[in-house]
Amino acid sequence: MVKALILITDGTEEMDTIAYDTLVRAGIDCTSAFVPKGLSPYGSSDTSPALAVCSRQVKILPDVTLDPLDAGPDKYDVLIIPGGMGGAVTMAGSTEVQNLVGAYYNHPEKRIIGMICAGILFILVDRIRGLWSICLQGSKVAITAKLPGQPITSHPSVQSEFPDYFDYKEQSVVVSDAVAGKATLVTSRGPGTAFPFAFTLVELLCGKAKRDEVVGPMIFPTGIGYPF
Amino acid sequence: MVKALILITDGTEEMDTIAYDTLVRAGIDCTSAFVPKGLSPYGSSDTSPALAVCSRQVKILPDVTLDPLDAGPDKYDVLIIPGGMGGAVTMAGSTEVQNLVGAYYNHPEKRIIGMICAGILFILVDRIRGLWSICLQGSKVAITAKLPGQPITSHPSVQSEFPDYFDYKEQSVVVSDAVAGKATLVTSRGPGTAFPFAFTLVELLCGKAKRDEVVGPMIFPTGIGYPF
Repeated sequence: MVKALILITDGTEEMDTIAYDTLVRAGIDCTSAFVPKGLSPYGSSDTSPALAVCSRQVKILPDVTLDPLDAGPDKYDVLIIPGGMGGAVTMAGSTEVQNLVGAYYNHPEKRIIGMICAGILFILVDRIRGLWSICLQGSKVAITAKLPGQPITSHPSVQSEFPDYFDYKEQSVVVSDAVAGKATLVTSRGPGTAFPFAFTLVELLCGKAKRDEVVGPMIFPTGIGYPF
Repeated sequence: MVKALILITDGTEEMDTIAYDTLVRAGIDCTSAFVPKGLSPYGSSDTSPALAVCSRQVKILPDVTLDPLDAGPDKYDVLIIPGGMGGAVTMAGSTEVQNLVGAYYNHPEKRIIGMICAGILFILVDRIRGLWSICLQGSKVAITAKLPGQPITSHPSVQSEFPDYFDYKEQSVVVSDAVAGKATLVTSRGPGTAFPFAFTLVELLCGKAKRDEVVGPMIFPTGIGYPF
């Protein structure tokens, strides 16, 4: 059974987590994992409750609290990082999560890393607020510097943050297999592209027929410009 | 300040609740209210926890448990009923919720009732499983029989349930002011139309300029067929 791990924390954009619902419709075994602020080397040491208060105050109870030792690419086929600036900054500031992203990226059995909206800031972690450049150098090398020319997209508000050696696209969803033997990167722009993002993940994980089966009953407007 | 009440219960389609996030972006004061199964005259008498386990197992903690005495149209401008068959059946089977819908429908200061996906079954309550025809006759009269020719839409899976005297539309969102002096009905089709549904509510409550302001940063795919 295909398995997906979706990270969530305080400040996560609730609409970006839509992938959970869509992936379940495709028969994928989904687990949402709360990322406590305490995991960050620079964050507060408070023991945040497992209940995530999202960016617009929707309160979601994740399935588990993130245990980095039980969240790796041996267990899951895809790692999904939603946006919401507050949540993305918390995740990007966590060495455990950074190491997790690196493990998925480098796993010999090709995995998928999905990032949407501000979640794409993960690959820019050294730039966020100027705080991380030294501490996270290792992650930076693993996640950023080894991805020259990698096609990506993100929320437009953070587009200017990307170095020139990224091949920045203004597409709803960008799938990149640019680096042989590494994870497939799936990046997307914002809440408005959350459905196409989820459908792209379903297609990659379960095939086009399954994607079409899932899309049908959801009744998208006719003429929709989603990249189907 | 504009205020919205969004009902939620076990089995609610999590994506239909997206309106919460979108309305908050528009500056609307949103409250999600859990509908316990115990409110149903035919439902079980268990005291369900306030945590709603949605249709695809996303767990959402609503802001409050529904108190019918504190949920009326004097307090809120709009009542929103999401889909998810399990949740819609629970709500439609609750006399308290039925009465609430009736109160919004008949309030002298014109209110809005938004229903999406299977949530539209509310106006068909006498037909659901054949159980409700006698008990809920009052609600049926208030909600169904007084709406001849009312334009509506719904999830296609329940379209055949609608009597001929409804003006059934296959549009993403249908706004009806067909009955003078009564609430505006906003109906929509399914998870795939959840964003247009929410934007229509924002436009009705806050105006077109606010809708455009909210839509912009959400980055919908170019060429999208949403009824903008």
